[in-house]
Amino acid sequence: MATIDETHDAALRSWVASANGHVDFPIQNLPLGVFSRAGEAARGGIAIGEMILDLAALAASGLLAGDALEAARAASGETLNPLLALGAGPRRALRRRVSALLAEGAAERPQVELLLAAMADATLHLPARIADYTDFYVGIHHATNIGKLFRPDNPLLPNYKHVPIGYHGRASTVRASGAPVIRPNGQTKAPDAQAPSFGPIARLDYELELGVWMAQGNRLGQPIPIGEALDHVAGLSLLNDWSARDVQAWEYQPLGPFLAKNFLTTVSPWIVTMEALAPFRIAQPPRPEGDPQPLPYLWNEADQREGALSLDLEVGLSTAQMRKEGLAARRLSQGPASNMYWTIAQMVTHHASNGCEMNPGDLLGTGTISGPEDGSQGSLMEITRAGREAVTLPTGETRTFLQDGDELMLSGRFVAAGAVSIGFGPCTGVVQAAPALA
Amino acid sequence: MATIDETHDAALRSWVASANGHVDFPIQNLPLGVFSRAGEAARGGIAIGEMILDLAALAASGLLAGDALEAARAASGETLNPLLALGAGPRRALRRRVSALLAEGAAERPQVELLLAAMADATLHLPARIADYTDFYVGIHHATNIGKLFRPDNPLLPNYKHVPIGYHGRASTVRASGAPVIRPNGQTKAPDAQAPSFGPIARLDYELELGVWMAQGNRLGQPIPIGEALDHVAGLSLLNDWSARDVQAWEYQPLGPFLAKNFLTTVSPWIVTMEALAPFRIAQPPRPEGDPQPLPYLWNEADQREGALSLDLEVGLSTAQMRKEGLAARRLSQGPASNMYWTIAQMVTHHASNGCEMNPGDLLGTGTISGPEDGSQGSLMEITRAGREAVTLPTGETRTFLQDGDELMLSGRFVAAGAVSIGFGPCTGVVQAAPALA
Repeated sequence: MATIDETHDAALRSWVASANGHVDFPIQNLPLGVFSRAGEAARGGIAIGEMILDLAALAASGLLAGDALEAARAASGETLNPLLALGAGPRRALRRRVSALLAEGAAERPQVELLLAAMADATLHLPARIADYTDFYVGIHHATNIGKLFRPDNPLLPNYKHVPIGYHGRASTVRASGAPVIRPNGQTKAPDAQAPSFGPIARLDYELELGVWMAQGNRLGQPIPIGEALDHVAGLSLLNDWSARDVQAWEYQPLGPFLAKNFLTTVSPWIVTMEALAPFRIAQPPRPEGDPQPLPYLWNEADQREGALSLDLEVGLSTAQMRKEGLAARRLSQGPASNMYWTIAQMVTHHASNGCEMNPGDLLGTGTISGPEDGSQGSLMEITRAGREAVTLPTGETRTFLQDGDELMLSGRFVAAGAVSIGFGPCTGVVQAAPALA
Repeated sequence: MATIDETHDAALRSWVASANGHVDFPIQNLPLGVFSRAGEAARGGIAIGEMILDLAALAASGLLAGDALEAARAASGETLNPLLALGAGPRRALRRRVSALLAEGAAERPQVELLLAAMADATLHLPARIADYTDFYVGIHHATNIGKLFRPDNPLLPNYKHVPIGYHGRASTVRASGAPVIRPNGQTKAPDAQAPSFGPIARLDYELELGVWMAQGNRLGQPIPIGEALDHVAGLSLLNDWSARDVQAWEYQPLGPFLAKNFLTTVSPWIVTMEALAPFRIAQPPRPEGDPQPLPYLWNEADQREGALSLDLEVGLSTAQMRKEGLAARRLSQGPASNMYWTIAQMVTHHASNGCEMNPGDLLGTGTISGPEDGSQGSLMEITRAGREAVTLPTGETRTFLQDGDELMLSGRFVAAGAVSIGFGPCTGVVQAAPALA
């Protein structure tokens, strides 16, 4: 159950001036990440406005005790996996203590000021060592839009409304925001080509997704009941599942996406915790009339009551020419995260329903989150109807898929009445030319 | 290029008596693994007959120097990842020194005897922490057999002879031989059922595969040329890709296998090194007349000359009743590993061709290795024609798929004229009943 406490109070302000009114990181957020400064080891941190609270230094400061100290110690290394393994209790204790330490009027301000690093001086890393990465397909409008391109009369497959469809992705190629998007070489075959060829891929696309970071796991053979699923989730980030559509079309039968998807996956580097997003949990939209009732292992009333998120998602594109002309990014899409047919709890429970072992730091992608209408579609494949209808940009340039030099930005904003909005921070990448062939 | 040296000499014998004539681990093999004894930390070891040479103790013994010492030190921890990361040079140096130390007449025998553990007293673990696990589909007869069940006139998809098809698997559920095979619960829907249901799966199957253990990796964005691919491979094991066929049929469209395959994958726990199998490398069978020439990035003459293995594979089944009656396992299939359409080098190079980062300890499965004829098929799905033709066992029991209590054993034997045969050791699992539903 989502607990709203004093850390969410909309009147709460921080003595860190840049936090108040910050688009992503006001004191109500306090997301978890890993950062380093030149010449220093990476360690855990909490974002507050334009600053980062150093959790390794905080753990050593004498300002913490009990569960909060245990949590900060677990966040003092190069990855947050030890913290994630502790589960919600210590994470919540750390949040409450840090909220108090950063709040206006905190007596400890002089000591805490010494524990802050400027975000501008820091490199942000992946928050955890990702043991396994799984990508789901819960954006029903995306599944429908993509399905329509191939099967106009029957876009959704028969299993879609019964099974939270997912597949395994590549953990080794997940990177934090800002990593260059090296255009891959790949084997492709146009439908009318005599034979396949190998070279720089032409249909480079993005996919707008959420990333779900797992906290404590389960043991092999032991499922995770739906009522306990969110106890295993630490929080969320944005996730861009970069995709080579021409490779995908040629390689994906019969075993699914492989090299089309494993050259890079970008995440926003801050884990917005389940505690932070408690005010933004809303009811899962009712299933359309006539849709099947999910099987009991996937169904929980409490999850339906607050299993969705009041979260607006947006995608922007900026070409090299646009940046040269000083033009702002062009918005490609905007829409709510409630376009997910399955909840996060349903994803987790289904994944572990066969006893599959989940571990702290595992990453689950939701799949592309698209709306039903134009302007809300989370990939160029959908927006341009598989490349048939180009997008025109303010420079007069057009795009069907991404070109070298293009920068793609995902953003997300949690919004709810009476709550201070929070966000993820950036999730961006600039496309670079493919490596020369040997 | 495969180098055959004095460590392969067929006349070489060990003072470890159980090694001479050993079916898997004569002195010509010297495979790498990780073991522990009660109350001791896990550490690297080398199998020799019925004994294990303790590499942590060897590293501390003063008997090694130079590259061999570096390798043994890297093998002293709970996983062999640090050793795998060193690549072939130190691995080969360690092999040569250990071969000399274990050879009949070695002056160091009194010291080395103190470094041996009895395999009977040891628990064998996974040899490496698996960062990413990928499963290929290079067994062309398996692909054809399975394809025939669905598309009798067109069993192989158009991409098969151009692309080494693969997909990502689940690293967290790979286990060493002997791990219990807990029958998963799963969502299934029979073709004639009105709606899906959830419960113990009925069509539990195995898949006979080889596992390929990666040595040093590549950097994100940098492909691995085909001529260098095997420099990135440490060695091989057996791999059983346990499969829930009823889950697979219902879930796999459009993104491939997921819960049908990620409840357990079993490997034989010893890495038979590329050095050890050098005498067993043979020419890749020529592609059938009319098959397309692979694209240049996948083609290398040297790889074609010695990219296949002279390796006989076999699968045995023993039911609880058979064991009770003291009956030997029933052989389900037997066939050569040369039924692989793509070589290991082609798998590695294709995987990294888009710049996908590979890491030491990554595991690649070959996919099921089946022959074209009855008696050589590597899964029950093929042997029983999707459950239509039961296998009869010596007890009079029949099987279409695996039942609780069944034990399934994979084995493999490298055979070549003038060389002492070597093997992998066991790769087994006993099926247990599914957990009760909540």
